[in-house]
Amino acid sequence: MTTTASPSDGASGTDGRTGPGTNSGSGPEPTETLELSRRRLLGTVGAAGAAGLVVGAAGGAIGVAAAQDDPPAALSSVGSASVAFRDERAKQQAGITTPLQARGHLVAFDLAPGAGRKEAAALLRRWSRTAEELMAGRTPAADTGVALDAGPSSLTVTFGLGRTFFDRTGLTAHRPVQLEPLPDFSADELDAGRSNGDLWLQIGSDDALVAFHALRALQKEAGGTARLRWQMNGFNRTPGATAAPMTARNLMGQVDGTNNPKPADPDFDERIFVGRDAGSGPYAWMRGGSYAVVRRIRMLLDDWEKQPLAKQEKVIGRRKADGAPLTGGDEHTKMDLEKNGPDGLPVVPADAHARIAAPESNQGAAMLRRPFSFHDGFRDDGAPDAGLLFVCWQADPLRSFIPIQRKLDRGDALSPFLRHEASGLFAVPPAAVAGGYVGQPLLEG
Amino acid sequence: MTTTASPSDGASGTDGRTGPGTNSGSGPEPTETLELSRRRLLGTVGAAGAAGLVVGAAGGAIGVAAAQDDPPAALSSVGSASVAFRDERAKQQAGITTPLQARGHLVAFDLAPGAGRKEAAALLRRWSRTAEELMAGRTPAADTGVALDAGPSSLTVTFGLGRTFFDRTGLTAHRPVQLEPLPDFSADELDAGRSNGDLWLQIGSDDALVAFHALRALQKEAGGTARLRWQMNGFNRTPGATAAPMTARNLMGQVDGTNNPKPADPDFDERIFVGRDAGSGPYAWMRGGSYAVVRRIRMLLDDWEKQPLAKQEKVIGRRKADGAPLTGGDEHTKMDLEKNGPDGLPVVPADAHARIAAPESNQGAAMLRRPFSFHDGFRDDGAPDAGLLFVCWQADPLRSFIPIQRKLDRGDALSPFLRHEASGLFAVPPAAVAGGYVGQPLLEG
Repeated sequence: MTTTASPSDGASGTDGRTGPGTNSGSGPEPTETLELSRRRLLGTVGAAGAAGLVVGAAGGAIGVAAAQDDPPAALSSVGSASVAFRDERAKQQAGITTPLQARGHLVAFDLAPGAGRKEAAALLRRWSRTAEELMAGRTPAADTGVALDAGPSSLTVTFGLGRTFFDRTGLTAHRPVQLEPLPDFSADELDAGRSNGDLWLQIGSDDALVAFHALRALQKEAGGTARLRWQMNGFNRTPGATAAPMTARNLMGQVDGTNNPKPADPDFDERIFVGRDAGSGPYAWMRGGSYAVVRRIRMLLDDWEKQPLAKQEKVIGRRKADGAPLTGGDEHTKMDLEKNGPDGLPVVPADAHARIAAPESNQGAAMLRRPFSFHDGFRDDGAPDAGLLFVCWQADPLRSFIPIQRKLDRGDALSPFLRHEASGLFAVPPAAVAGGYVGQPLLEG
Repeated sequence: MTTTASPSDGASGTDGRTGPGTNSGSGPEPTETLELSRRRLLGTVGAAGAAGLVVGAAGGAIGVAAAQDDPPAALSSVGSASVAFRDERAKQQAGITTPLQARGHLVAFDLAPGAGRKEAAALLRRWSRTAEELMAGRTPAADTGVALDAGPSSLTVTFGLGRTFFDRTGLTAHRPVQLEPLPDFSADELDAGRSNGDLWLQIGSDDALVAFHALRALQKEAGGTARLRWQMNGFNRTPGATAAPMTARNLMGQVDGTNNPKPADPDFDERIFVGRDAGSGPYAWMRGGSYAVVRRIRMLLDDWEKQPLAKQEKVIGRRKADGAPLTGGDEHTKMDLEKNGPDGLPVVPADAHARIAAPESNQGAAMLRRPFSFHDGFRDDGAPDAGLLFVCWQADPLRSFIPIQRKLDRGDALSPFLRHEASGLFAVPPAAVAGGYVGQPLLEG
């Protein structure tokens, strides 16, 4: 299994996105209620090519328009970058190894009373079709127009299934043990209304209107089958705000994600994606899928920002400026957990966040963290309602998130500055096959 | 008075922002708690030059770093673009004629009990200094680090004064009649707790972390002098999401802002900025300033999206796809308000939004609309809590916003789809002079 969301034509950049000029033609445009502007057509050329559509009759006309147009404006690659909904090589859904986007929505739905397996299957089929269209930069019929003129802007839509989904659809025999409820942690202050849910969607895009547009389109398609349970909005750095792509900072100012597993790691796939051990039995539908743990983690920023820099760095175990371990080097230097300072104490304190979460401290357990920051204004006490929409990916939460979070819960120096306010655990099936939909092997198996 | 926020060195682009490579030197860097990374230095070179600082001893060192570095990554102009806090030519604050940024915060503060004119003056001095530093891409001492690595990303901070500010500071003799409370409109459903306030800040940036960082830094400086009253978060399109810069779309999908006054219009300054008629009397401190009307306008999107496209276009008076008037042409073609269709009725209906709001329908009254969209999740009834953070700028709201909104309130076909939920009216003084602060002529006059 490959580990990037690169399109199958090999024309993408190293970051799994495609930009303008990577196509050699274009597929037919679907009938649209709104007239396509010339700009819009240009914006979708690369996307249609990247999605691997058959070159159709419309390709010629679009090519003429492109040839006559002015050179593309600077930065247009932000809008025209697209991520493939399905990928010949990578079997996982988009939005897991895709680079962080600037804007994200996490949304959970519950199946409506009376909706069962058949209705859920129809919904996932509708959703998959629409996600594929939108991610390729195409506009559905009867569209709201909110995303017109913009390209797909690296839009991804990722679908997950919660524990209760299997009860509602009569599929409990196919529910993996990994969906057992997460244990309680002492620092949890969970809001049940903003936790879990039958169905989960992660929407990401580098443009906020494109993300909003996708959310509305997908919500509309839920129709009478599923109703919104909760929704959270997040953000990351805008492409180009730093001089070169780099590990993101969170709202505490920390470089966050340095020690993430890398797709080039030899054990990346087995850590992040469900492998052969899914077998051919009742859980075979999850082969190539992953499990997402979602936590709304509010940061007590007023408290945190009162700590001196040296204290903050001891809490984390890394330097704030560049994320380097306190034991020296740069951001990507391996942390020396054995090193002691002149005082005989470990340079990276025993309760430092980075020590406790390190794979070396957890029998190699690791998860791919891919969060968004959130900021929903201020609370009644004047403190910011802000923090991290923590999303992590793993082949088995029983061997990664749960044991690591147990350790953090007991001894992490960072814990006093965090509140876990909502939680979700979702099985994220592999990508749909051509002509199919996400979850089809489960629902039609 | 000039009408753009261009820096005084003339090196900016036509949009009032500066990018990399426009400087010929750099000012001294302030002492920083966090180590500056090389990348960070590069990001601030353009900014420091654009802010018109004196070339200092540090310039050489930074120049060497720049020369040794790899070529800048694509898109780095997003981060390094900066807007001047003060401008030798334009006398107004930044954030009025500055192009829309991708992310925005609107924030109101009330002076704390016991805080009067002296404390307000000290706060505006602190705020002005910090705004200037941050807009130039410099990091304050004891910084949170949230914006590290990013450039200023077109950050602007704009300061306004509400009606109650003058009572609290004993300056009612200097309060212009333009700050009289706005009249009630029939469609208002205003939340007093999210309306008005003594002090108002508009923060905009193309990067969400840079905007958040500025908000936190400014809030911290309010200290015991002022406490947060309300805060709203908004967004616009990400730079580069469209192939070329264009008029923004709102969450209804409409191209919104086509008929805005343009800086090149001969009467732009007199419509938007307070001019000579401020005289030398008690209101002279507002000469070169502007008035901001702020409205949180929720859109009833579920209702709106049920309307057929033809109905939506009649409500607005423009085509949805490209914003062209229903009377033909393209987006910037003048609307023919006299044209009748084959049925003998006006092509642009009598109650169309664009007709009622047009300057031709309002004795030439016009305002510069510069909004952000908002999306704060969903309401209890499942409808999106989303719409427009409407911000409009004018020399005199008594001659622009108020009469136009009265007309819209009576007869606008769009009104049934909108709810005005919060409202603010603020006097926005001219820019600070060198070494001074925003509002100084009022507070020390």
